[in-house]
Amino acid sequence: MELTKTPLLTDLYQLTMLQTYYERGMTDQAVFEFFVRDVPGRTYYVAAGLEQALEWLEGLSFTDEERQWVRDCGFFTGEFADRLADFRFSGDVEAVPEGTAFFPGEPMIRVTAPLPEAQLVESRLMNIVHFQTLIATKAARCVIAADGRAIVDFGMRRAHGAEAGLLAARACYAAGFNATATCLANARFGVPVTGTMAHSFILAHDDEVEAFESFARSHPDNVILLIDTYDTEAAARHVVDLAPQLSEKGIAIKAVRLDSGDLAEHARRVRQILDDGGLSETTILASGGLDEFSISELLRSGAPIDGFGVGSKVDTSADAPFMDSAYKLHAYAGKPRYKRSEGKADVPAAKQIHRHYDGNRMAFDRMTRADEDDNGEPLLKPVMRDGRRLSAPESLEDIRRRTAASLGALPDSVKDLRSPRDYTVELSEGLRQLMGDD
Amino acid sequence: MELTKTPLLTDLYQLTMLQTYYERGMTDQAVFEFFVRDVPGRTYYVAAGLEQALEWLEGLSFTDEERQWVRDCGFFTGEFADRLADFRFSGDVEAVPEGTAFFPGEPMIRVTAPLPEAQLVESRLMNIVHFQTLIATKAARCVIAADGRAIVDFGMRRAHGAEAGLLAARACYAAGFNATATCLANARFGVPVTGTMAHSFILAHDDEVEAFESFARSHPDNVILLIDTYDTEAAARHVVDLAPQLSEKGIAIKAVRLDSGDLAEHARRVRQILDDGGLSETTILASGGLDEFSISELLRSGAPIDGFGVGSKVDTSADAPFMDSAYKLHAYAGKPRYKRSEGKADVPAAKQIHRHYDGNRMAFDRMTRADEDDNGEPLLKPVMRDGRRLSAPESLEDIRRRTAASLGALPDSVKDLRSPRDYTVELSEGLRQLMGDD
Repeated sequence: MELTKTPLLTDLYQLTMLQTYYERGMTDQAVFEFFVRDVPGRTYYVAAGLEQALEWLEGLSFTDEERQWVRDCGFFTGEFADRLADFRFSGDVEAVPEGTAFFPGEPMIRVTAPLPEAQLVESRLMNIVHFQTLIATKAARCVIAADGRAIVDFGMRRAHGAEAGLLAARACYAAGFNATATCLANARFGVPVTGTMAHSFILAHDDEVEAFESFARSHPDNVILLIDTYDTEAAARHVVDLAPQLSEKGIAIKAVRLDSGDLAEHARRVRQILDDGGLSETTILASGGLDEFSISELLRSGAPIDGFGVGSKVDTSADAPFMDSAYKLHAYAGKPRYKRSEGKADVPAAKQIHRHYDGNRMAFDRMTRADEDDNGEPLLKPVMRDGRRLSAPESLEDIRRRTAASLGALPDSVKDLRSPRDYTVELSEGLRQLMGDD
Repeated sequence: MELTKTPLLTDLYQLTMLQTYYERGMTDQAVFEFFVRDVPGRTYYVAAGLEQALEWLEGLSFTDEERQWVRDCGFFTGEFADRLADFRFSGDVEAVPEGTAFFPGEPMIRVTAPLPEAQLVESRLMNIVHFQTLIATKAARCVIAADGRAIVDFGMRRAHGAEAGLLAARACYAAGFNATATCLANARFGVPVTGTMAHSFILAHDDEVEAFESFARSHPDNVILLIDTYDTEAAARHVVDLAPQLSEKGIAIKAVRLDSGDLAEHARRVRQILDDGGLSETTILASGGLDEFSISELLRSGAPIDGFGVGSKVDTSADAPFMDSAYKLHAYAGKPRYKRSEGKADVPAAKQIHRHYDGNRMAFDRMTRADEDDNGEPLLKPVMRDGRRLSAPESLEDIRRRTAASLGALPDSVKDLRSPRDYTVELSEGLRQLMGDD
């Protein structure tokens, strides 16, 4: 049972519902939509994770061992376990391409498939796209705050498990980060990888200068020195003292990293020390509990910081660690369906999002029935037919460019960190009729 | 490169430091400790994830493909890539057993190994134990709040990726939950699995009663009906009307589930309707955005709720989605080492935690040097020697019992949800000398 592929990474109720659907012959076409409701602290989302979702859908099947579990777990008939031998996802998928900004209530993914298939995929499909969209959104906010400075993901160690560590790096890069520290994200996805040293490296040496020198000789092309282990300004002076010896060997000190204390104040003092010591080319990187708010604050204060390393707060989207997302049945057997539970009502029927622009800027979106005409740009595109992807995976570079374009077109008022405004999403005449009719 | 096993799921700097250590012959024994600093909103932590950490350490090695990446990525020498062919973790590990409550600053895991080995394992070791400890701690708070009622994990869909979904279920069960909805946690770890139905199941049928009946016939031993899709009280009356027909077929309605609106008020009305309809044996389950605070509030209000389903807020530990945890070098080549960065200073040297009791209740802990005498109960136990586990994996049932005992012994004032007090952790004479000496 391979962790990222197994259909048993699902909620039991998906399987119990499935058995009933098979028994009652409820196998007509169903339309489910994945969307995100209002999330406090967010006015836009950046779509991500589609690639992993499609890969998973395309490979979905039950191994003998998995069917044995179904047979033995006590909830199902042997007939049902047998039937799962043929289970495949044979449906159609429309989706908002990765890197596109979208808004509360808008469907990011629409699945059209026989009811049992469309239902079974719910839990893991959400698990995949919810997480990457969560992180790409958080990362995009940091990219905007960093305002052109380099920004790197260091968060794997406190991401929630292995897949979160890996895919957070992918989502951050898709959102516009420059690199990650996570090697596997380079090996798997080609995300540029970078790194410095840990405090333990400094501590393992008998003194700081020896540690700096030892690192520089071992990695002459990549000399980034961590200078806050003992006394930050003293360390900056050690760096200045060391530079001429290294320079003789053709080694340049690319950067220093600050990881604690008052980062703005340290950056100013360290910049002065480096400049006075002739190291004006050596850049200053800052890390340590950073997010879009602290990055923005540091830059507003004029701190001479050239790049940021962010970790836990981004890889866990700490101020909003989950989104109120849903995957809801919106049509079955040709009829619109929707839930009216209190506080959770949603918009029925298969839908399309049409984006309207004012010059280069996004002006508003209009949600319509999927079959309704509109003169905006339709955002949901066909990506899977009969369970097969319609095209090769997009490159991360393409996704990254799309994110940049999408964030660039987003009105400043919607992007504002401190008092953002909501973006306008209209409901079409066709949808309003449908809701009023009910 | 298997996601959960590959040594490339690490930060680049671990490898850059490693190359330097090899080049400089820095391969003496190092002692690293994993601990958690103060986390707002938490006064205790519940240790979890050790089993997965030890399994990973025991299997750690580089495949040819992984070494090829090291060779090709541009940061390392060919010599270094070759040398990794022999890389194994050959160290010793002492750890606080899973299910044990521990406190800020106390080492949960101590690794003693040649410096390169002890260093390389940092990122993934933290990734594993940080997450499960985070979730077990959150889940333990919910178990205490539920005060004996059943509590089940439904959170996989919004957990952060595949491994988080799976291991959150393990951590919740270890902390005292009754079950999970995640099938794979049953298949892998034997966690009891349970489930009901989604709103889509109700919506796919033409009416609610038909949906209830259809489910009951298909799953006669497990009839738990979701009653908030349209009108909760009307649905409860449908349940009452349906009960006699099902009863004739020997089918009992075990429970109903509420998932929206004012759960306390709905529970009261539904209880009345069920009791008046002769269904006093049918229990009421509640779900929908619950955590320890809302569970405690519901029970304080006297809501007749028999069990809780919790999801996103627990599986992401939403009010504290990461812990300020660290894995720090505390000794190298026989000398204590520690970092003095501002606001992050820690306690040097290999340590032990000694727990002192007052009757059955925990009174205080004392941290000592590992070689110092103390008359308390030592919490860190040897679990790995020379890279091999000292015993077979503990059963989850044993861990669960340990959690119950540990939470039972924790002073009420420390467990209090609203105004908890800190537990006392003393530093021994030996440690104070060491810190003062520096």
